[in-house]
Amino acid sequence: MTLKSLGRYVPILQWGRSYDKQAFSSDLLAAVIVTIMLIPQSLAYALLAGLPPEAGLYASIAPIILYAIFGTSRALAVGPVAVVSLMTAAAIGSIAEQGTMGYGVAALTLAGLSGVILLVLGLLKLGFLANFLSHPVISGFITASAFLIAASQLKHILGIGGGGDTLPEILLSLGENLGQTNLITLTLGGGATAFLFWVRKGLKPLLRSLGLGPRVADMATKAGPVAAVVATTLAVWGLGLDGQGVKIVGAVPQGLPPLTLPSFSPDLVGLLILPAFLISIIGFVESISVAQTLAAKKRQRINPDQELIGLGAANIGAAFTGGYPVTGGFARSVVNFDAGAETAAAGIFTAVGLAVAALALTPLIYFLPIATLSATIIVAVLSLVDFSILKRSWIYSKEDFIAVVATILFTLGMGVETGVSAGVILSVGLHLYRTSQPHVAEVGLVPGTQHFRNITRHTVLTDPTIVTIRIDESLYFANARFLEDYVYDRLAGNGEIRHVILQCSAINEIDFSALESLETINQLLDEMGVKLHLSEVKGPVMDGLQKTHFLEALTGQVFLSQYDAWHSLAPTQDSSLTVPVQADAPPGHG
Amino acid sequence: MTLKSLGRYVPILQWGRSYDKQAFSSDLLAAVIVTIMLIPQSLAYALLAGLPPEAGLYASIAPIILYAIFGTSRALAVGPVAVVSLMTAAAIGSIAEQGTMGYGVAALTLAGLSGVILLVLGLLKLGFLANFLSHPVISGFITASAFLIAASQLKHILGIGGGGDTLPEILLSLGENLGQTNLITLTLGGGATAFLFWVRKGLKPLLRSLGLGPRVADMATKAGPVAAVVATTLAVWGLGLDGQGVKIVGAVPQGLPPLTLPSFSPDLVGLLILPAFLISIIGFVESISVAQTLAAKKRQRINPDQELIGLGAANIGAAFTGGYPVTGGFARSVVNFDAGAETAAAGIFTAVGLAVAALALTPLIYFLPIATLSATIIVAVLSLVDFSILKRSWIYSKEDFIAVVATILFTLGMGVETGVSAGVILSVGLHLYRTSQPHVAEVGLVPGTQHFRNITRHTVLTDPTIVTIRIDESLYFANARFLEDYVYDRLAGNGEIRHVILQCSAINEIDFSALESLETINQLLDEMGVKLHLSEVKGPVMDGLQKTHFLEALTGQVFLSQYDAWHSLAPTQDSSLTVPVQADAPPGHG
Repeated sequence: MTLKSLGRYVPILQWGRSYDKQAFSSDLLAAVIVTIMLIPQSLAYALLAGLPPEAGLYASIAPIILYAIFGTSRALAVGPVAVVSLMTAAAIGSIAEQGTMGYGVAALTLAGLSGVILLVLGLLKLGFLANFLSHPVISGFITASAFLIAASQLKHILGIGGGGDTLPEILLSLGENLGQTNLITLTLGGGATAFLFWVRKGLKPLLRSLGLGPRVADMATKAGPVAAVVATTLAVWGLGLDGQGVKIVGAVPQGLPPLTLPSFSPDLVGLLILPAFLISIIGFVESISVAQTLAAKKRQRINPDQELIGLGAANIGAAFTGGYPVTGGFARSVVNFDAGAETAAAGIFTAVGLAVAALALTPLIYFLPIATLSATIIVAVLSLVDFSILKRSWIYSKEDFIAVVATILFTLGMGVETGVSAGVILSVGLHLYRTSQPHVAEVGLVPGTQHFRNITRHTVLTDPTIVTIRIDESLYFANARFLEDYVYDRLAGNGEIRHVILQCSAINEIDFSALESLETINQLLDEMGVKLHLSEVKGPVMDGLQKTHFLEALTGQVFLSQYDAWHSLAPTQDSSLTVPVQADAPPGHG
Repeated sequence: MTLKSLGRYVPILQWGRSYDKQAFSSDLLAAVIVTIMLIPQSLAYALLAGLPPEAGLYASIAPIILYAIFGTSRALAVGPVAVVSLMTAAAIGSIAEQGTMGYGVAALTLAGLSGVILLVLGLLKLGFLANFLSHPVISGFITASAFLIAASQLKHILGIGGGGDTLPEILLSLGENLGQTNLITLTLGGGATAFLFWVRKGLKPLLRSLGLGPRVADMATKAGPVAAVVATTLAVWGLGLDGQGVKIVGAVPQGLPPLTLPSFSPDLVGLLILPAFLISIIGFVESISVAQTLAAKKRQRINPDQELIGLGAANIGAAFTGGYPVTGGFARSVVNFDAGAETAAAGIFTAVGLAVAALALTPLIYFLPIATLSATIIVAVLSLVDFSILKRSWIYSKEDFIAVVATILFTLGMGVETGVSAGVILSVGLHLYRTSQPHVAEVGLVPGTQHFRNITRHTVLTDPTIVTIRIDESLYFANARFLEDYVYDRLAGNGEIRHVILQCSAINEIDFSALESLETINQLLDEMGVKLHLSEVKGPVMDGLQKTHFLEALTGQVFLSQYDAWHSLAPTQDSSLTVPVQADAPPGHG
């Protein structure tokens, strides 16, 4: 393997050679900013996943470095993200108790499986599987997941116990335990939430109006969570609030990420393989969307299959260093990009910063209240909620609207795995349904032209012995029977018809099922004494048909244009003008 | 509800009113022929389903009458069929022991569930679900099922015990028990099989060469199984072979179909609902294919949704009269049609004939050897085997070939339910894969014309500031990301491009995901200083886009024709002729 071909699979070998001082200083600055943002976020997402806080830090160190080596995006920041953390909690919660050894090992195993799946998809170039998730399904899923996440954190804000993987379960559990609310925790948690919302919405305009530059104002806004962490930690420590029932992070091991081993026992793998697959696909979709957007802004390119390999390596790294499933996060990547990161080296510097934090800073967060972490989660995820997708999809396409609504309802009502599966199945099903009943027009000649238009919309010439059908869709198994039905229905009880012409101008493909349907139609029409003709068949479709015996068996002809077909088949004396029922139909449709 | 609208759901009210003497005599003759053919076939298929022989007769009486009332096909003959019998055995075999009460009740329940599913699909007009089964999947499934069925009957021909739902299981079980082969059974069964194959292949030409008319020769061929039944029954009775280990049908209750009750216990329903769904869909596909072919031959029409109702009623009838899942059979329907059946009344007369058989003739089959029934099954199903699909799909489409091979292998290796499910999932997946990577061509102007062709196949005019992309597929979620990738890749590292034109002539639809991708592309191109234009957008697609803000946000224009776009955007002095790399590419493709 030459260095160049090796570079295809290890992109760092390509950009690393031209790395210079200017890129170094840009990357270093970006890394400092991202590190400050990531410390509270990593701890919080570990909490969301049901893991000890250090797991969040560990999941941000080795994975970032591995992605920097194998990934193709220059600005993507890999680590724990909200939705994947929630999916991790849902996947593991049903098979192990939080806080047990088994729970941690299951998280490592989930990361390991997810890594292997991503790697295999990348090596086999199966990245297209992510296309099964339509935009409406992704939007609905993210919005519903954000709701679930926010709801799941309310118990920490209230200082009560509880659980649940679905919205009804979570709300029921909250209702049952509401009486035990710890008012001090609520004050801290509620205060932190309100503060963080204000930082997000009100701080930047305020700082700008005080005369600060846009960059400084932006940085101050990013530091909001750190300020909340420092303030509430000091409050708990200074006032001894942990003695009054405020739950705190407590002792966090001080050190670099440990070497850990996931378990690959068949039982555990069997239970986790499907969740791992869903996490991989969802994570990949989130990651690739961000990576693609950021790369395109600089006319750079990313390679989706290599991205799978990069994310796979990152997850395998997480599995062996005490982490849990990771992916490229939206917020952190945008911050990294905006802060000026030029290469993946920024990620490596961020990893170094987080390693320093894991080594030196963990004693400082002993008194950090859990409620503060929940506040940062709630504020972060609620920015993901976007109900506008409901209105926009309703206006544009009812099928897409149904897919959004179903994804939201299933995710809220039955959990993340059922939600995303239902969304995928439904959107694939609706797509097949839509294309299984394509728009079909019977067309006639517009007098004085060579154009053929829908007989129900235009005043056109038709002939009682000729039926011309234009199908506005490729022919494949889902609509093969539809075409048969349509043709037989059109002929049923009508003995005058002698020619059926299929105008194929909108047909990009004819699959084997459709070919067999055409053969059947041809044969049955022959028995009725009716000839089947084709017109305006596209080149690649014709290439395919020429490999078969269909064209030999065809009772009629293949015409280059519909006008040629009409010209040679119509006994002009019988032709008559068909006036559309709906004479005021808009032109240009058909 | 008027009689007319009632007639829509109860077709017998329509054709029944014009029923006359001529139709009566045609129907009666057809019924006699079909009845003779059905008696041994019904007994044999019950055996295949693991049920007592009378279940096959019962399953052919009430269901036929109910279909005659509610179905729309004039010639369809409903009852037990080979593939559905095999699927019944596979579904029930895992939850109850053959010969027990539970087994029979499970069969009734399966029929009841299947009936309800078909009825619901019909009332909700969900018949399109059957379209998910592509022709290659159906062909592969039928061929593999026929093999499984034939293999499963070998033990009866050999007179040994055994079982298994998959080919490896069946062969292993045969191998283990081969030592116990009963030679008398083998002689009877092997002889019957050889005789029936000869009847099928050799008898008709022989009779014709002896000067008999084609109809008589045909009738004699159809009576082959009856002859085998009579001959072997007489042999067993006369020679007392049942005392020498030849298994016989034995005592069969004499009487009309009993009133039976399926069980709807949640446990049983939970176990049977998925098999019932698969049986319903497979049965519907077999039935509708036959019904449609026969109806089209007489320019009659059938209504797929009403067919679902008819088949649903038939299966519910089977559940309450001691039967098991039924559908419209291919062989029996063709015989019915060829024998001259004009209306569904032929079915009613057939039911009467079978009821007479159930009342009066069952004592006559006491000595009928099981091996003879197995011989009729083997000969019947081997005519369903069609390996030509492998070659035909290989030549035409590799994806369809993969679907056939996978369906065959999964059906043989893992059973009917896994086989058909794998086939459906794979063919849907391959379809999405194919359309997720559509044919995309970059096009240029053919000099001296207004035509635009693929720059890699034709000598065309291009301009360094303009990229024109023609996508030969509708845009939807599965290829939305592909388009983004393609456009960004084309622009990556190229600063000269100022205009991107999407030629939309092959785009029949743009779904919501693709719309969002176009919006993203438009926005990112804008940031790069590149304008996005559309040309040749179809009417319905334009209607959709006009409902959104996309056209307002579009940085470029929408051109009626690609030539208009070129004409107004190209700074002609820069345009240059691009000579295709592959100068000898065939014309007309692109």
